Amino acid sequence: MRILFIGDVVGKTGRVVILEKLPGLIRDWKLDLVIINGENAAGGFGITETIYNDLVDAGADAVTIGNHAWNQKEALVFIERAPRLIRPLNFPRHTPGRGAALIDAKNGARALVINAMGRVFMEPLNDPFSAVGKEIDACPLVEAADAIVVDFHGEASSEKQGMGYFCDGRVSLVVGTHTHVPTADHQILSGGTAYMTDAGMTGDYDSVIGMQKEEPVRRFTTGIPSGRFEPAFGPATLSGVAVETDDKTGLASRIAPVRLGGRLSQAVPEFWLN
Amino acid sequence: MRILFIGDVVGKTGRVVILEKLPGLIRDWKLDLVIINGENAAGGFGITETIYNDLVDAGADAVTIGNHAWNQKEALVFIERAPRLIRPLNFPRHTPGRGAALIDAKNGARALVINAMGRVFMEPLNDPFSAVGKEIDACPLVEAADAIVVDFHGEASSEKQGMGYFCDGRVSLVVGTHTHVPTADHQILSGGTAYMTDAGMTGDYDSVIGMQKEEPVRRFTTGIPSGRFEPAFGPATLSGVAVETDDKTGLASRIAPVRLGGRLSQAVPEFWLN
Amino acid sequence: MRILFIGDVVGKTGRVVILEKLPGLIRDWKLDLVIINGENAAGGFGITETIYNDLVDAGADAVTIGNHAWNQKEALVFIERAPRLIRPLNFPRHTPGRGAALIDAKNGARALVINAMGRVFMEPLNDPFSAVGKEIDACPLVEAADAIVVDFHGEASSEKQGMGYFCDGRVSLVVGTHTHVPTADHQILSGGTAYMTDAGMTGDYDSVIGMQKEEPVRRFTTGIPSGRFEPAFGPATLSGVAVETDDKTGLASRIAPVRLGGRLSQAVPEFWLN
Amino acid sequence: MRILFIGDVVGKTGRVVILEKLPGLIRDWKLDLVIINGENAAGGFGITETIYNDLVDAGADAVTIGNHAWNQKEALVFIERAPRLIRPLNFPRHTPGRGAALIDAKNGARALVINAMGRVFMEPLNDPFSAVGKEIDACPLVEAADAIVVDFHGEASSEKQGMGYFCDGRVSLVVGTHTHVPTADHQILSGGTAYMTDAGMTGDYDSVIGMQKEEPVRRFTTGIPSGRFEPAFGPATLSGVAVETDDKTGLASRIAPVRLGGRLSQAVPEFWLN
Ligand SMILES: [Fe+2]
Ligand SMILES: [Fe+2]
Ligand SMILES: [Fe+2]
Ligand SMILES: [Fe+2]
Ligand SMILES: [Fe+2]
Ligand SMILES: [Fe+2]
Ligand SMILES: [Fe+2]
Ligand SMILES: [Fe+2]
Repeated sequence: MRILFIGDVVGKTGRVVILEKLPGLIRDWKLDLVIINGENAAGGFGITETIYNDLVDAGADAVTIGNHAWNQKEALVFIERAPRLIRPLNFPRHTPGRGAALIDAKNGARALVINAMGRVFMEPLNDPFSAVGKEIDACPLVEAADAIVVDFHGEASSEKQGMGYFCDGRVSLVVGTHTHVPTADHQILSGGTAYMTDAGMTGDYDSVIGMQKEEPVRRFTTGIPSGRFEPAFGPATLSGVAVETDDKTGLASRIAPVRLGGRLSQAVPEFWLN
Repeated sequence: MRILFIGDVVGKTGRVVILEKLPGLIRDWKLDLVIINGENAAGGFGITETIYNDLVDAGADAVTIGNHAWNQKEALVFIERAPRLIRPLNFPRHTPGRGAALIDAKNGARALVINAMGRVFMEPLNDPFSAVGKEIDACPLVEAADAIVVDFHGEASSEKQGMGYFCDGRVSLVVGTHTHVPTADHQILSGGTAYMTDAGMTGDYDSVIGMQKEEPVRRFTTGIPSGRFEPAFGPATLSGVAVETDDKTGLASRIAPVRLGGRLSQAVPEFWLN
Repeated sequence: MRILFIGDVVGKTGRVVILEKLPGLIRDWKLDLVIINGENAAGGFGITETIYNDLVDAGADAVTIGNHAWNQKEALVFIERAPRLIRPLNFPRHTPGRGAALIDAKNGARALVINAMGRVFMEPLNDPFSAVGKEIDACPLVEAADAIVVDFHGEASSEKQGMGYFCDGRVSLVVGTHTHVPTADHQILSGGTAYMTDAGMTGDYDSVIGMQKEEPVRRFTTGIPSGRFEPAFGPATLSGVAVETDDKTGLASRIAPVRLGGRLSQAVPEFWLN
Repeated sequence: MRILFIGDVVGKTGRVVILEKLPGLIRDWKLDLVIINGENAAGGFGITETIYNDLVDAGADAVTIGNHAWNQKEALVFIERAPRLIRPLNFPRHTPGRGAALIDAKNGARALVINAMGRVFMEPLNDPFSAVGKEIDACPLVEAADAIVVDFHGEASSEKQGMGYFCDGRVSLVVGTHTHVPTADHQILSGGTAYMTDAGMTGDYDSVIGMQKEEPVRRFTTGIPSGRFEPAFGPATLSGVAVETDDKTGLASRIAPVRLGGRLSQAVPEFWLN
C-alpha cells in the first residue's frame, strides 16, 4: 500500500501547490492513501469547509489538524459533516468531531487515521499516549485495519520520538507535524513502523514558519507586536513523507521524504519512479 | 572557505564517530573550519576538559555548547583555559568563558564563531538577537572576519528562522542545534547567509534524542521517573552541515547536509567530492 | 462541620509546627476534619511512610500531595497501604494510589477529599476539570458526602479560580496549594463553596518557598546551580484555612485564614474562639 | 515616609474604586507616595493616556505596568510624554519609555520607582536581577533616593521572593504584581526591606483574575475560545500594601495589607489610624 502524508498546508500558496501537484502524484506514484495536515490552510489559521472540500477533491483521503483546529469557528460545526476531517483525539471530552477514523483508501483498503497532539511546550491536553494506545487496541493492524497512520502534532522531538517507539510494530507510520520544518530522520523503526519527526510545512520557506518574516522578526527583536501575521506568498514547497507498507503485515517496507517545488532541496521517493 | 558544522555530540558513540571520521573528512573535503557542538558529549550531559581536548585533537577549531553547558561542573573552570570552547553569549553577566571568539581557521583565515541560545520554550536568558547583533557589528564580515558562524541553540523553529533572517547578509552561516534531529530545510537565504534549522545530533538515532529509549518512553506513559537517562550506544550518525563561502564576501555559495554512519539516510556534500 | 486545611508542609520545621500545634487546635477548635498537604514534608521533596504516619497520628484525617508526589520513591509503594494518602487524580491511568477518597471524619461524617493538579505552567496531565466533575457527580454533596474538599494543586491563579467556580455549589471547599504563599482572597463564592487561591506553605518564611534562600538567589542571578536545595530551618508558620460548613447543605457558612507561628502575621478563625 | 502601593487596576470597576477612595486615603493616612499598577486599567488590557491622567489626578505619583504594557497601542507613544508612567526595565533595548524614575513624592522626598518583570512562566526578557541591581547601584538609598520601591511583575512566587532577598537592605519595598491575588505574606525582611509576594488586583473578585468568569471557565472545560474576555463589573476591592519607612535609612519600619471595598476581607494599616 502506498501512502503519502503531506505536512501543514500554510495559506494560499500551500493550497495552490497541493491542487497543482497532488492529482499528478496520485496517478504517477499510484497512491492508495493521501493524508494532509490542514491546520494552517485558511490564511495560516485553521481550516474552512470550502478548503476542506478542495483538499478532498484534490485527492486527500483524510485531513488532519492540530492546535489551530478551531481558529476558523465554522470548523466546530462543519466537522460533524466532514467525515474525513480528523482533529486531535486528546482534546477535551465533548469536543466536536473525531480523533480517529477508519477511512476507505483508494484501493479499497481500510486505513485507520489518528490525529493526536503532544503536550510538551503545548497547551494542556489529555494523555496522547494512552489515547492513541486505546485506538490501536480497538482497531488493530491486519485484523481491523490494513494501515494505521498517526499524525502526532507536537513541538518537542523527544515526545514525538517517544510516540514513535510507543507505536512501533503496531502502526504503519508515525509522523510528526507542527514545527513547520521537515526533518531528515525518516527511518523504519526496529519493529517495522515508519517514522519521521516532522513532515514539514507545505508553504513558502522564505518565511517564518510560513508567515511573512518581517512581523515575526520585529517581535523577536522589539518584543512588541506591530501588526498581524500574514502568510508568505512565494512559491510553496509541498513537504511530506512517502511510505510503502507490506500488504501482509501493514508495516512499513520503505520510507522517503517528499519535497516538491519552492526553495527547499527537492526529494522524491526513488522507489516509486519505476 | 570550507566549513563543517557538526551537531550535538551525544555520549561515547557520538564521540567515537567523530574521532573515527573527522580527520578523514578534513583531509578529503579540504576543510578550513570545523565547529562541533559538544554540550552532550559527556554521557549525554555537558562536556569535560578531556573530551574537549579530544574534539580539538580530532580537528575541531571551535566547540560550542548550550543549555547543558555546566552539567559537568569542571566546565565552569576549564573553560577559562579552553580558548576554543564557546558558550552561549546571552548567559547572565559574569558567566565564565566567552560567547564569541575569533578563531584562526586551518587556512589562516579569521572565523568569528558565536554561540547563542533561544528563549522560546527554554530557560530565561538575555536577548539573543541584540547580543548577536552587537558581536556582528563589532567584528563585521570581510572587514574583521573572513567567516562568521552562529550556532543558535534553541527549541522553536520560528525563533531559529527569525535569527536566520536577522543575520542574513551579515554572517556566513546560522545553524540551529538542540532538538537533536536534523532538518531538511538547509538553504541560502536571499541575503547570502547559509541556514539550517537544526544540525541534528551526532549520536545513535535508535533512541530518544540520543538517550536509551526505555526510560523516556516510560516517563511519557506513566509520568513517573524510574531511572536515569543513559546515552544509547548503537552506531552513531555524524550529523551536520557543510557550507562553502565566497572568499570575497564571506557569504555562502553552497550548502549541503552531512549524515554519515548509523541509521539515518546518508548525505554528503556532492560539491566537495573531487 | 469544622474543617482545617493545612498547606504544603516543608521539611522538618514544617513537621515540627504541625506536631506541636495540631493536637491542641483539634481540641480547642473542635475540628471534625483535618487535611494536610504533605508533598514537601520529606526534606522539601515528597513524603515517606514514617512522615505520613506521623501526620496521621498528629490528627490528619487525609494527606494530599502534588507534583512532588513521587520524589521519595517509597511513596509509589506505601500509598497502596495508606488509605488516607490522596494523590492528584488526573495523574496518568495506572498510577498507584487514589485521587479521591471518602474519609470518615472525626465526628463520623463522610468527607470526600479530592486532590487534583492544575496544568497551566505545570507538567502535562489529564483534564482536572472533567476528572473532578466525575468524582463529584459520583459522590454528591448531602446525598453521599457530608463535606467535599478539593485540594487543587496549581500555579496559575486563573486556573485555580476557574476550578472554584466550576465546583461552586457542589463542594464545601476548593483550596489551592503549590505556590507556597498564602493568599488573602478567602471567600465564600456565590453558590456556597468556600474558596482560597492558596493555603500557603507550612514552613519557614525566611526562605524561597521553604528552601534556604542562598542557592535559589544564586541561581536566579547567575543561572548556574551550585548546590542542592535544602529546607530552611527557622521557625515555621502553620498556614492554612478554616471552614465551617452547614450540616444540612454541606456548603460553607464561614471561612478564615490560619497562620500560626513563624514570621507571618498571625491569623485564627475568630468564630471558633468561643 | 508613608507609601501606598496599589495592585493591578482591572477595568472600569477598578478605576472607580481608585477615584472614589484614593483622595480620602491620601488625606486620612497622610500618604507621601502612591504607586498604582495600571496594566489592566483599560478594559482589562493595557492603559490609555486618559486613564493614566485620571490615575495621576486621583493622586498616583507613579503608575507601573507589566506584560500588558502595550495592549493599547497608544501607550507606545504617550509614554514619552508621561514621566510618571514606568514600564518594566528589562524590556528589550530601544523600548519606548523608562523602566525606573526618580519621582518627587508629595512630601518633597525623592522616590526611585522601579518596574521589572519576572521571567519564570513569562515571556522572555532580559535579566531582571542585574537590571534592578544596576538601577539601585546608580541611585542608592539615602544617598540619592529617600525611598526605593520595586514593582516586580511576575508569576512564580520563588522568583518574586528571590527578588525580595536580592534587594533586601537596599530598597524600601519589593512588591509583586501580576497574579491578581493578594498574598498574606507581607513582612519586613531581615535586612529591612518590606516585602509582599503580590499586591492583588484592584477589581471585582467575583471573577477570574478580574474578568467575567463564564468565558474563562468555558475555556478551561472545553479548550475552545467562544468569546472575548471582558472585565467583571461588580464592586471592586482596592488591594495593595501600606509601608512606612524610616526617614534616616529609607528602610521599612511597618507594613500592612490594604483591602477596601468589594468581596474580600477588609484590611487597613492600623498604625496609621491614630
Ligand atoms: Fe501548523
Ligand atoms: Fe500546530
Ligand atoms: Fe543537545
Ligand atoms: Fe540543548
Ligand atoms: Fe509544595
Ligand atoms: Fe507543588
Ligand atoms: Fe495584571
Ligand atoms: Fe500581568
